[in-house]
Amino acid sequence: MTTQEQLHQWHELAQQLRVDSIRATTIAGSGHPTSSMSAADLIAVLISKYLCYDFDNPHYPNNDRFILSKGHAAPLLYAMYKAAGVITDEELLSLRKLGSRLEGHPTPVLPWVDVATGSLGQGLPIGVGVALAGKYLDQLPYHVWVLLGDSETAEGSVWEAFDHAGHYTLDNLIAIIDVNRLGQRGQTELGWNTQAYATRARAFGWQAIEIDGNNLMEIDQAFSAALSINDRPTVIIARTKKGKGVVALEDLGGWHGKALKPEQEKKAIAELGGERHIIIQVDKPEQAKPATIANSQPLQLPIYEKGAKVATRRAYGDALKALGAARPDVIALDAEVSNSTYTEDFAEAFPERYFEMYIAEQQLVAAAVGLQVRQYKPFASTFAAFLSRAYDFVRMAAISRANIKLVGSHAGVSIGQDGPSQMALEDLAAFQAVWSSTVLYPSDANQTAKLVAQMSDRNGVVYLRTTRESTPVIYGADEEFPIGGSKVVHSSQQDQATVIAAGITLHEALKACDRLKNEDITVRVIDAYSVKPIDVQTLHQAARDTNGNLVVVEDHWSEGGLGAAVLDAFAGTSNTPIYNGPQLRLIKLAVHDMPGSGTPEELLHAAKIDADAIVEAVKSQVRKPIEASAKLYAER
Amino acid sequence: MTTQEQLHQWHELAQQLRVDSIRATTIAGSGHPTSSMSAADLIAVLISKYLCYDFDNPHYPNNDRFILSKGHAAPLLYAMYKAAGVITDEELLSLRKLGSRLEGHPTPVLPWVDVATGSLGQGLPIGVGVALAGKYLDQLPYHVWVLLGDSETAEGSVWEAFDHAGHYTLDNLIAIIDVNRLGQRGQTELGWNTQAYATRARAFGWQAIEIDGNNLMEIDQAFSAALSINDRPTVIIARTKKGKGVVALEDLGGWHGKALKPEQEKKAIAELGGERHIIIQVDKPEQAKPATIANSQPLQLPIYEKGAKVATRRAYGDALKALGAARPDVIALDAEVSNSTYTEDFAEAFPERYFEMYIAEQQLVAAAVGLQVRQYKPFASTFAAFLSRAYDFVRMAAISRANIKLVGSHAGVSIGQDGPSQMALEDLAAFQAVWSSTVLYPSDANQTAKLVAQMSDRNGVVYLRTTRESTPVIYGADEEFPIGGSKVVHSSQQDQATVIAAGITLHEALKACDRLKNEDITVRVIDAYSVKPIDVQTLHQAARDTNGNLVVVEDHWSEGGLGAAVLDAFAGTSNTPIYNGPQLRLIKLAVHDMPGSGTPEELLHAAKIDADAIVEAVKSQVRKPIEASAKLYAER
Repeated sequence: MTTQEQLHQWHELAQQLRVDSIRATTIAGSGHPTSSMSAADLIAVLISKYLCYDFDNPHYPNNDRFILSKGHAAPLLYAMYKAAGVITDEELLSLRKLGSRLEGHPTPVLPWVDVATGSLGQGLPIGVGVALAGKYLDQLPYHVWVLLGDSETAEGSVWEAFDHAGHYTLDNLIAIIDVNRLGQRGQTELGWNTQAYATRARAFGWQAIEIDGNNLMEIDQAFSAALSINDRPTVIIARTKKGKGVVALEDLGGWHGKALKPEQEKKAIAELGGERHIIIQVDKPEQAKPATIANSQPLQLPIYEKGAKVATRRAYGDALKALGAARPDVIALDAEVSNSTYTEDFAEAFPERYFEMYIAEQQLVAAAVGLQVRQYKPFASTFAAFLSRAYDFVRMAAISRANIKLVGSHAGVSIGQDGPSQMALEDLAAFQAVWSSTVLYPSDANQTAKLVAQMSDRNGVVYLRTTRESTPVIYGADEEFPIGGSKVVHSSQQDQATVIAAGITLHEALKACDRLKNEDITVRVIDAYSVKPIDVQTLHQAARDTNGNLVVVEDHWSEGGLGAAVLDAFAGTSNTPIYNGPQLRLIKLAVHDMPGSGTPEELLHAAKIDADAIVEAVKSQVRKPIEASAKLYAER
Repeated sequence: MTTQEQLHQWHELAQQLRVDSIRATTIAGSGHPTSSMSAADLIAVLISKYLCYDFDNPHYPNNDRFILSKGHAAPLLYAMYKAAGVITDEELLSLRKLGSRLEGHPTPVLPWVDVATGSLGQGLPIGVGVALAGKYLDQLPYHVWVLLGDSETAEGSVWEAFDHAGHYTLDNLIAIIDVNRLGQRGQTELGWNTQAYATRARAFGWQAIEIDGNNLMEIDQAFSAALSINDRPTVIIARTKKGKGVVALEDLGGWHGKALKPEQEKKAIAELGGERHIIIQVDKPEQAKPATIANSQPLQLPIYEKGAKVATRRAYGDALKALGAARPDVIALDAEVSNSTYTEDFAEAFPERYFEMYIAEQQLVAAAVGLQVRQYKPFASTFAAFLSRAYDFVRMAAISRANIKLVGSHAGVSIGQDGPSQMALEDLAAFQAVWSSTVLYPSDANQTAKLVAQMSDRNGVVYLRTTRESTPVIYGADEEFPIGGSKVVHSSQQDQATVIAAGITLHEALKACDRLKNEDITVRVIDAYSVKPIDVQTLHQAARDTNGNLVVVEDHWSEGGLGAAVLDAFAGTSNTPIYNGPQLRLIKLAVHDMPGSGTPEELLHAAKIDADAIVEAVKSQVRKPIEASAKLYAER
């Protein structure tokens, strides 16, 4: 039973959260006080009675998790941290200032924030990932609480989350929708039609509870009902007022993302009953033992015979299974194409560590982010082209400092007959432009296995691009391929040019190398399997050794891929050594025209990224000595 | 009433579609016959009785539209074209061959295909766009038919479409879900639970009809019911059997995306009753006059005074409104941030040509693709960071050869306090890596207006990046800014280095230029407002004139942005002229560390992309003459 005393305490706490949300934003001069105020009652009850969380030990396995999906209500989150006694009032008032941990939207620079939010519609799908970990891997009784805004339910990713949470009966997941009716520019699509939300949620297999989200008693009852169900997730659809508690703000337009001016602040705080100094003792979770995770075993990677023809996607599947046998913390996910990515072998061997995400790539990546919150090592795979569906999630994963491994198969025109919709031709560009990412593109099965092994403990967003077609094994199983390195596959003292390739085009480069040898042209061939970070030293050396003649060839659009990475290696930035050598004469071979269907060979040829094109490019370089171009320059 | 005779004819046609789907894939050696066979009855009834389409005149405004969202069932689509008499049997059998119009998944190289499909979950949101055009702009009685697979309903984008179609009461939109139960790797999430599909669809405001999708009578009744409703969209949930009609295939696993071998083909065709040679006369639409579209008026772009401080997003809003007044075919869409992108001015002036897409960026871009099917000129805007949510739709739009204009505001660290989740720092990379795209990044209000004017008739995916902060107007309203050009803002005969910037960093470059002048260092400043295509000639000239000393500065990650575009201008490809000049000594200034919150100035400084950083970079170049580096090279 909720006593009057409790209700009063909760009310006082909620008012403090409102006052502090206003104070922090007014001093910052920007931010979202009204979006914080609507949800203050929900948070007050949550932290007073329901949330089990050890603030001194944020990574404690038994902790509940709280994700503020409506990240713009960050002031409320920070006010909650202050109420929990873990940040000072002084720090609260540093909101949005340079160097403060209290950024405009929450990020994990704060130890209690598991994932960055602020791109709407991401908190719930990530919460699904954490809840999957809790229910199926940790097998611990903790709950995952996600506070959403109403506007963000327009994002399809939210419905991917509703769908998957229902499918996996995540009774440990509780979504709270703060239906304050007003979006950034006016009324949301559904306004206060909480019934519409409830009907939709129920259609996806959820318990849905409609409440007045500014009524503490109703909040209490709803949270209690959420905890008592054990066969499905719960969503609490909380009808609230934006700016609740201050008449000049309450349920009024034009107040989204706007801080109060000092004189407005003063009046508002008075109306809310003034500042308070409540510190809440948030309940710590009861101790419960996580499901025993077996110890790591020695890794026995698959081994391939030189000369055999093996697709790197096949080697990925084999290596992932081997990694799974050695590492109990490795988890695999796939978007209903596991028989193409070959994640199916892992799924068969370790069904308890495999999650089928169906054709929902946003949820796929979000689940990986959620799993790594609990320190698992998630490998998420689909066709490389379809990872583009989750690009915003990848971008945000970087801001979350998440450690996830993404594997995209069927890259490039070399997939052949299926046509351009299935061909990733922008993935190297997209993944390179992710903060602190690693981009790998192996050409051979043994190399793939060695890279997969390194991926598991590599921090950040790590992307592996695999190839559909079978290609010859060219490396011995004992060779090493450190991330950041490259392999000089062919070299001599007389090299006249260097061909830089990766993945499928490396095999074209090797063919071209053989053919050029017959014409007495010797070329160096570099396998740039680590596209980011790229092996700057080896590239510089090659440029120095081969008169600056470089040919880069890639199965990717001309923009942002391997060619761009190589060019970058020769541009001065604070991070790369300066190149000192003969003038660079670089030719980029990449895909320029929209491909259609055809055989892999036909399409590589049509795109001018096959051995023929490489031979031609090298010849054009070695036949045009530096002197000629220098002369041309002098003559202009 | 459906007569027995009709049913027999439809059955014969459906069997022909099955036989032809098998024949085309067997000779191709790959493809998806079984996914085609499940839906053959649906298509047979559709083209025999319901579809109104003039195959001789695919762009006829009154035509119904048919979108094969399950693009892998392309053989069925091509068999339908053969049955309609518009492709020959010979062409049918060219499926998936190099140069054939019949690609593995449909693309608009065929005149009757409006948009490419093959990335699942896109057909319905694009259909929403076409239906918006039909109901609200064309005001014509045509219908939009979309055939979906069951697996693809896991995509959130499908629920964005359900949501928006319900919201806009698109009674001219009919979705058909081919629930054949089997996905690529086994049973789909919902299997044959058609009730689950229906409950969900109804929750989003649709009429939902469950039928046996291999029962011709039930199909007929469902299509008829769909046409008779006038207050909401209809979805027909058709329970079917994959591989229907051939016992060895019917409802069996392991047959996704697999062609029959010739001996299997022979037996299957016999079981289906052999080849048939039916040609259907598809009904042409009744003539109806499109809503009158007013003539274009002279364009009166907004004019800004030099020296005034105006954000380019503000100028975008003004220019879009001006464009809307001049061009009745210009349409605007926004994802619930129109008061930040300033699309709200257009919305207010031309409410009948504005569509609120709420926070659903995939649907935002898909609607734009759908609108351009009907020759409208859609401008879709949101925060640049959130366009990453729709990257797969942009990728597919390029394959669709769609003409859409995307406008992203709030780019870069210079947005300030809101923090990294709101900062686009990868958009230039992502959009450059889209086939045939245009990427524009203005620095000034007059320039923005001139670029917006050019966007409306520019083909392909055209992206404009705008800035949150107000910046000084530096150009007169009479200056021209052709796409593909650049502006040399400052130059002299004595320039020792060139600074290349765009958008917000151009203003930092100009500050640096002034400061360097005080130290007797003269620099050229280039405004590279057209990032793609970039002005290669002007960059080459600058490199030749300034000893190869280039400094590129951009508010973007180091990868794939303006710096990459400039480097590319000096790499040899078939598309760029060869650079002949002094050795390039290029310094890229870009964002390397994850930003937090702060003032725009603080964050530009912290990222080392402000005037201070430019001054330092230029000094490091001009103080390190070429001879020194050449000496270093000789000494190594």
